[in-house]
Amino acid sequence: MSGKEEIESLEKLLSKLDVKDLESVNKILYGIGCSKLEIPKIEAEDLEIQSYKFACPREQTRLPKITRVGLFQNKTPLETWAPIQEQRQALHNLAEKAIEAAAKASVNIFCFQEAWTMPFAFCTREKVPWCEYAENAEKAIEAAAKASVNIFCFQEAWTMPFAFCTREKVPWCEYAENAEKGPTTRFLQNLALKNNMVIISPILERDEDHNDVLWNTAVVIDNHGDYFGKHRKNHIPRVGDFNESTYYMEGNTGHPVFETEFGKIAINICYGRHHPLNWLMFGINGAEIVFNPSATTGELSEPLWGIEARNAAIANSYFTCAINRVGTEIFQNEFSSGNSKPAHKDFGHFYGASYVAAPNGSRTPGLSRINNGLLVCEMDLNLCRQTKDFWGLQMTQRLDLYAKSLTAAADLYFKPQLIKKF
Amino acid sequence: MSGKEEIESLEKLLSKLDVKDLESVNKILYGIGCSKLEIPKIEAEDLEIQSYKFACPREQTRLPKITRVGLFQNKTPLETWAPIQEQRQALHNLAEKAIEAAAKASVNIFCFQEAWTMPFAFCTREKVPWCEYAENAEKAIEAAAKASVNIFCFQEAWTMPFAFCTREKVPWCEYAENAEKGPTTRFLQNLALKNNMVIISPILERDEDHNDVLWNTAVVIDNHGDYFGKHRKNHIPRVGDFNESTYYMEGNTGHPVFETEFGKIAINICYGRHHPLNWLMFGINGAEIVFNPSATTGELSEPLWGIEARNAAIANSYFTCAINRVGTEIFQNEFSSGNSKPAHKDFGHFYGASYVAAPNGSRTPGLSRINNGLLVCEMDLNLCRQTKDFWGLQMTQRLDLYAKSLTAAADLYFKPQLIKKF
Repeated sequence: MSGKEEIESLEKLLSKLDVKDLESVNKILYGIGCSKLEIPKIEAEDLEIQSYKFACPREQTRLPKITRVGLFQNKTPLETWAPIQEQRQALHNLAEKAIEAAAKASVNIFCFQEAWTMPFAFCTREKVPWCEYAENAEKAIEAAAKASVNIFCFQEAWTMPFAFCTREKVPWCEYAENAEKGPTTRFLQNLALKNNMVIISPILERDEDHNDVLWNTAVVIDNHGDYFGKHRKNHIPRVGDFNESTYYMEGNTGHPVFETEFGKIAINICYGRHHPLNWLMFGINGAEIVFNPSATTGELSEPLWGIEARNAAIANSYFTCAINRVGTEIFQNEFSSGNSKPAHKDFGHFYGASYVAAPNGSRTPGLSRINNGLLVCEMDLNLCRQTKDFWGLQMTQRLDLYAKSLTAAADLYFKPQLIKKF
Repeated sequence: MSGKEEIESLEKLLSKLDVKDLESVNKILYGIGCSKLEIPKIEAEDLEIQSYKFACPREQTRLPKITRVGLFQNKTPLETWAPIQEQRQALHNLAEKAIEAAAKASVNIFCFQEAWTMPFAFCTREKVPWCEYAENAEKAIEAAAKASVNIFCFQEAWTMPFAFCTREKVPWCEYAENAEKGPTTRFLQNLALKNNMVIISPILERDEDHNDVLWNTAVVIDNHGDYFGKHRKNHIPRVGDFNESTYYMEGNTGHPVFETEFGKIAINICYGRHHPLNWLMFGINGAEIVFNPSATTGELSEPLWGIEARNAAIANSYFTCAINRVGTEIFQNEFSSGNSKPAHKDFGHFYGASYVAAPNGSRTPGLSRINNGLLVCEMDLNLCRQTKDFWGLQMTQRLDLYAKSLTAAADLYFKPQLIKKF
């Protein structure tokens, strides 16, 4: 995709339609009940801010449960081969601006794109010098601290470049740190406490108690600065440049939902969005908002982007927050993609387009495909139960049937229910 | 929605964009690899024909498995209170034209919208005179017979008006007939044999061997005229005017996949499209094409329509065919919807927009929101396995994990994996 001129956004193109036509198109494509959210005028260079809210009727017996999320997508500001300290500093500067902007917009939960503190270098399989990115969090967190954010969610493996595509192990593995006591978690605890903010910090985890193995893990720190728990990524891609399965394995933490003071949240990391069962279990465990920090590229992926997290919101009657990296990252050394094409130096264009989907299937427009962006979205979590009552999908779900079906299907000697004539 | 002027289609509005913009929009909204299919010029009054095909690379070890489906959506041509014989005749005339057109387009599998042979009268709860619609199949089937269609799929409960919304039991229940030996099945067997055509016939089934209970059942007759099997609708709505749960219960036939000479097919009837587990089991059992004959209305449903069957195609690496009724049907007697609004005489606008989605997430445009339409779509079933190999969603599915999770979740004393601080 590099070299090709990228369009700015689907919505920008659609906006060329006349007002009446656009209204009809939006109703079908985006649903009803999502409207502009008024926020203070915020000055932030190189950051496009959009803000929306979802409608939700008042109830008689419950107060509204208003939560406001901020989704941040950003380009890497420097070349991928820039010295780590400089790259980190530039990213932190970006993050600080975004978090300050989010704070001015009264955001409660802030979520970065996947692996936001690094180039998405995993495609290259190189390990040098990427691993030196380890422990680069301070600046960004300080910014978050200033921002009175209530729930702060970093992107997947945020403490390092997303280097899995490189298949190189040095220096990437050195980014790994202990989930509960590592320097990043300790650092975030201070900021969480200071800002009354829940922070979700997806890192590369080093499990020192179990043979030093690695995991792709989201750490949750609560708004009192306490370590709250962690979730390990359940589904690891084996697609093209997504070489993550050479770095860590499928998670063993099930589908935890974290009951924060700002809502019951879960994290479905990146490739897990392709798996309806993964989304389902977060719903069964009570999630009201599921974050999906991602890094995805390409014309095979993009038509799926608006479908999967949104379908999960519909099927499970919760909110989903889909955040994708933005921009094209060029690497210094070429690498191949296992697709018979020549080696190349980029991973394709990360098309951004982050969005929030509501339980009733409404969604916000997407952020830009090419620019840094902050999506602020206010939601009343009461809409989850209201939607369950309306559609009845949980009541009609027939879990007992599928528990048996899947148990049978998982058996080595499973015979599909295939009707043949002879 | 009645009285309101309906837009013709999303695609018609989008077509007002300039060519370059439209190309970019289509790539994001519809994916890549779906292109116009050349078919002979077909004259068919009051029938908009669109035709597409999905790209699929040639393989070395398997021949292409080309199948061509036809999706037919239609308005009821007469007032809902027209005499049954007249209504039936008018519908059969429509169907005959559509099937003839499909035959000229070399369609192998033809599928009607849900309950195509009747008004969608279930909203009214009236049972008289709807039940007399029973045994109205002959004319349409004769038409199909002429059409050298290879797989013929009727809409849900095709042998009767879709009267479940009425909550009336007379005459609706009289539509029910034996799946294996009822007059409709016997009639279709002749046509299936004559035309070397697989026919899927969703009817209201009377199970005389089990206390005369009713089921919403799709009967499959193979292209040699033999009864092949049946599937009973797994998930029954309890939403608004969809009063179907007062007529029949959740199906007990599992998730059968029918291995026809033209592909391995399954039927996910209407509301089952909201349930990812339902789609999943058809995939696990080997389906290559899953038909979703539906009848759905309203602004809460429409934003979901393009998402759910398409997500199922992506998640399960098969083709999905989503067919929706079209038009607004007015009933003679008013009925209420359980939504605090006054009783009314229509069920809302059936917004059509039938489409086919491919395993790689590409989709065809939708048919019209207001007009009768036939969607012809050619596919190479090899794309299913190719997509599985590319995305690896089946390999990374972790069925064993979810078999255990769902077994736990289905237990009465299940405790969600909810992380609380205290």
